Amino acid sequence: MTQHEAVYGFHAVTARIRHRADSVIRILVDRNRHDPRLKRLLLAARERGVAVENVSGEQLDEAAGSRGHQGVVALVNPRLRGQTLDEVLETIDESALLLVLDGVQDPHNLGACLRVADALGAHAVLAPKDRAVGITATVEKVASGAARTVPYVVVTNLSTTLKDMNTHGIWTVGAAQEATLPLADCDLTRPVALVLGAEGEGLRRLTRRTCDELISIPMLGTVESLNVSVAAGICLYEARRQRQLAAAPSAKP
Amino acid sequence: MTQHEAVYGFHAVTARIRHRADSVIRILVDRNRHDPRLKRLLLAARERGVAVENVSGEQLDEAAGSRGHQGVVALVNPRLRGQTLDEVLETIDESALLLVLDGVQDPHNLGACLRVADALGAHAVLAPKDRAVGITATVEKVASGAARTVPYVVVTNLSTTLKDMNTHGIWTVGAAQEATLPLADCDLTRPVALVLGAEGEGLRRLTRRTCDELISIPMLGTVESLNVSVAAGICLYEARRQRQLAAAPSAKP
Repeated sequence: MTQHEAVYGFHAVTARIRHRADSVIRILVDRNRHDPRLKRLLLAARERGVAVENVSGEQLDEAAGSRGHQGVVALVNPRLRGQTLDEVLETIDESALLLVLDGVQDPHNLGACLRVADALGAHAVLAPKDRAVGITATVEKVASGAARTVPYVVVTNLSTTLKDMNTHGIWTVGAAQEATLPLADCDLTRPVALVLGAEGEGLRRLTRRTCDELISIPMLGTVESLNVSVAAGICLYEARRQRQLAAAPSAKP
Repeated sequence: MTQHEAVYGFHAVTARIRHRADSVIRILVDRNRHDPRLKRLLLAARERGVAVENVSGEQLDEAAGSRGHQGVVALVNPRLRGQTLDEVLETIDESALLLVLDGVQDPHNLGACLRVADALGAHAVLAPKDRAVGITATVEKVASGAARTVPYVVVTNLSTTLKDMNTHGIWTVGAAQEATLPLADCDLTRPVALVLGAEGEGLRRLTRRTCDELISIPMLGTVESLNVSVAAGICLYEARRQRQLAAAPSAKP
C-alpha cells in the first residue's frame, strides 16, 4: 500500500486516466455520487480498463490525505522520475517554449504553474533540485491534471542547464522587476526559456547573470509582485501571441 | 472590539499604513521579531503616527483569526462600503479599464484578482451582489494590500450595470471558451470592462448575452480552464500592451 501515490479531484483523475491509464492501480469513487460528471469519468475508466471501487467519503479522505478530492481518488504507481531536458527537447516539433522556476517551493504555486504551462502550451517546466518542490498530491490537485501532462524536469545546477539550453539554440529570458526591456518588446518567437523567480525574492543573482536577456512585466499599482503563476501566464500568453502573429502576419498586432 | 477588522501580512499592513493610515486603530507586531522588514514597517507606522503594540504569537493568531499573519496584524476601522460605479468613473482620467467578476465566490480568488487588478492598473473590480464575496481577512491577505487600493464595487444587477457602462461609452468584453475572437484581436484601447466568470462555470447566460463582444484566451493543453486570477492577468496585460503600443506606435508589435 505504501507504494501508491494518490491523485485526486476530477481534473487530475480524468487526465491521469486519459494519458497514463497504465499507471492507475484503481480509482476510488464516492458511493453516494451519481451525477453526470462522475458517469463520464466512470465511462472513461471502463474504456481504458481501469478498475473502480465504490467507497465511503471517509475512505476517500484517508486515501487522498485531504478532503478536496471531489469524490474521486486514483491510486497510481509513482511515476518515473528523471526525465531529462534532452529527452524533452527531442519531443518538441516547434520553436521550444520552456518555463523555468527558480525557487518556487510552495506546492500550490507549482501546481498553478503546471496548469498555466499546460493551458498555454509550454513544453516543459524546469526547476533546480535544491529549490524545487516534488509533485505532491496538493500539486496534482491544483494542477488540474497538468502534473501528468507537462514534463517537470528537476535539474542539479540551473545555471549550467541555462547554458546547455544556449547550445541547443534556446534563448533564456529572465523576468526581473528592474529590467528595462518590456516583455512585449522581447522576441519570443525564437526558441525560449522563460525564467521566473519566487514572488518577492525574484531570481537568484547567478540565475539573473546567466540569462541572455531580462524583461519586465508592467507593474502599474502598489503591490510589489505578481503571483508566480499569474506572471507565468502573462509571459507564456505573450509568447503564444507573438507566435500566432508571426504565423499569420496579416492579423492585427 | 467587535467594531474592528483585522488586516494582516506584511504587504497588506504596509499598504494599509501607506494609503489609509487614518483608518488604522493600531498595529500588533510579534514581540519576538526584530528583522529588517519589520523595522521598515515600524518606521512607516511611526512616520504616519500609527500606534504599535508588541504582542505574542498567540495574540496575533487570535487577532487575525488565522496563522498566516507573518507577525503583523493591523486593527482597522471597517472601510466605507458602497462606492458606486459613477463615483469610480469620475476618478478615471484615461480610457477606462474595469474588471468584472461574475461568480467569483472564493476569497482566495477574489484576493488574487484584486492583486492582479492593482498590478496591471485596472480602475476597479466589480461583482454582482448575489454572487460576490465580501472583503474578508483572507481576501486582504491574498490581495497583498490591493483590497485597499483597488475600488471593489458590488452591484445589484450585473446585466443592468453592463448596459449602464455602455451609456458611459464603455465596451463590455466577456471571456468565453467557445468565443471565436482571440483576445489579441479585440481592440482593448477603447474604454473596456473585461468580464470573467468563475472557473469551470464561466459566465452566466444573461451576462454572456449582455456583453458587447466575447473573446477567448488561447487554450492549447488538456486543462479545461485557467484560474480566474491568471485569466484576469492575461486580459489586463493584453489591454495594457495594446494601450502602450497605441501611445508609442513605433514600438515593436
